[in-house]
Amino acid sequence: MKNLYFITSNNGKVHEATEKLKPFDYNIIQKDYGYPEIQTETLEEVARFGVKHFHQKKIDHPFILEDAGIFIDALKGFPGVYSSYVYFTLGLDGILRLMKDVTNEKRTAQFKSVFAYGTTQGDIQLFVGTCEGIITKKKQGSKGFGYDPIFKPTGFDKTFAELETNEKNKVSHRAKSLEKLVTFLKDK
Amino acid sequence: MKNLYFITSNNGKVHEATEKLKPFDYNIIQKDYGYPEIQTETLEEVARFGVKHFHQKKIDHPFILEDAGIFIDALKGFPGVYSSYVYFTLGLDGILRLMKDVTNEKRTAQFKSVFAYGTTQGDIQLFVGTCEGIITKKKQGSKGFGYDPIFKPTGFDKTFAELETNEKNKVSHRAKSLEKLVTFLKDK
Repeated sequence: MKNLYFITSNNGKVHEATEKLKPFDYNIIQKDYGYPEIQTETLEEVARFGVKHFHQKKIDHPFILEDAGIFIDALKGFPGVYSSYVYFTLGLDGILRLMKDVTNEKRTAQFKSVFAYGTTQGDIQLFVGTCEGIITKKKQGSKGFGYDPIFKPTGFDKTFAELETNEKNKVSHRAKSLEKLVTFLKDK
Repeated sequence: MKNLYFITSNNGKVHEATEKLKPFDYNIIQKDYGYPEIQTETLEEVARFGVKHFHQKKIDHPFILEDAGIFIDALKGFPGVYSSYVYFTLGLDGILRLMKDVTNEKRTAQFKSVFAYGTTQGDIQLFVGTCEGIITKKKQGSKGFGYDPIFKPTGFDKTFAELETNEKNKVSHRAKSLEKLVTFLKDK
């Protein structure tokens, strides 16, 4: 078994990664370490900065961390890397209000997830997954979390919050970034 | 003359600090060094993290930096530490849209500024200034920058963007934090 730290407070993410990596002899160990997330425009930079933080701390195992966000084209990419903060302040109602006069064809958005892998020697690898879709005009569904009730992935007539977890996990941004990470790790 | 670095890309801020500190024999040297700003809820933490960054870099002179933001009560403190990002994505129209149904008495907001002073030995001092006011229902005035056209300070019937610079500088958040910094520095 190869031990791999997953630095996150989110048990759901750990469960998803554990399932995917178990066949390749990885033992995921959740570590709820906080780390500084910087203000910047890309998730890649946030993740890279997080990895460097743990390199400076001389972390004793290889590790992964993940950052995600939703980028709404009509709002110039807002809320982007600040998706979590905006969810807890403006909420989905705030987003819908900002999008009130935006026509259907301009309601495009991307959910994006970045997994970062760090070694104990100071190496960094990033794995990006995106999911294209549109922002609905009202909240639909109660599954999932965050922006799921207002995001309808391309090719579906349901929001993420109306899809079953296994359906969502086939097309979601995080499923894609995780898949790339798994492909990388299984050959190591 | 005591040399003091002001780490900022904003010439206006440098001018204001230079004027206030000249009588006390300080020579302000602008340094346009970038530094990581973290995602957090308070300007104090952003400023403190910035100072630590330069301490780690073994900066060779005492230095100051400043961070500011507007905290709107009806939006749970949004945009707060992300004021600059939100200004360039949602803009003032976005803020006004979010506030559309908010009644006059609930349109309260605080402009806040934090000056941080760092020594070459690793000390940190913070100086906070706030300015209470309300968010107007439409943009008024063309002076100043950022949120000035929609912020009316308490006791005035004009927005920051309608006030003359010298009037604004009597009551502004930055004037207050700078005043505290000056008081501290002149006795050093």
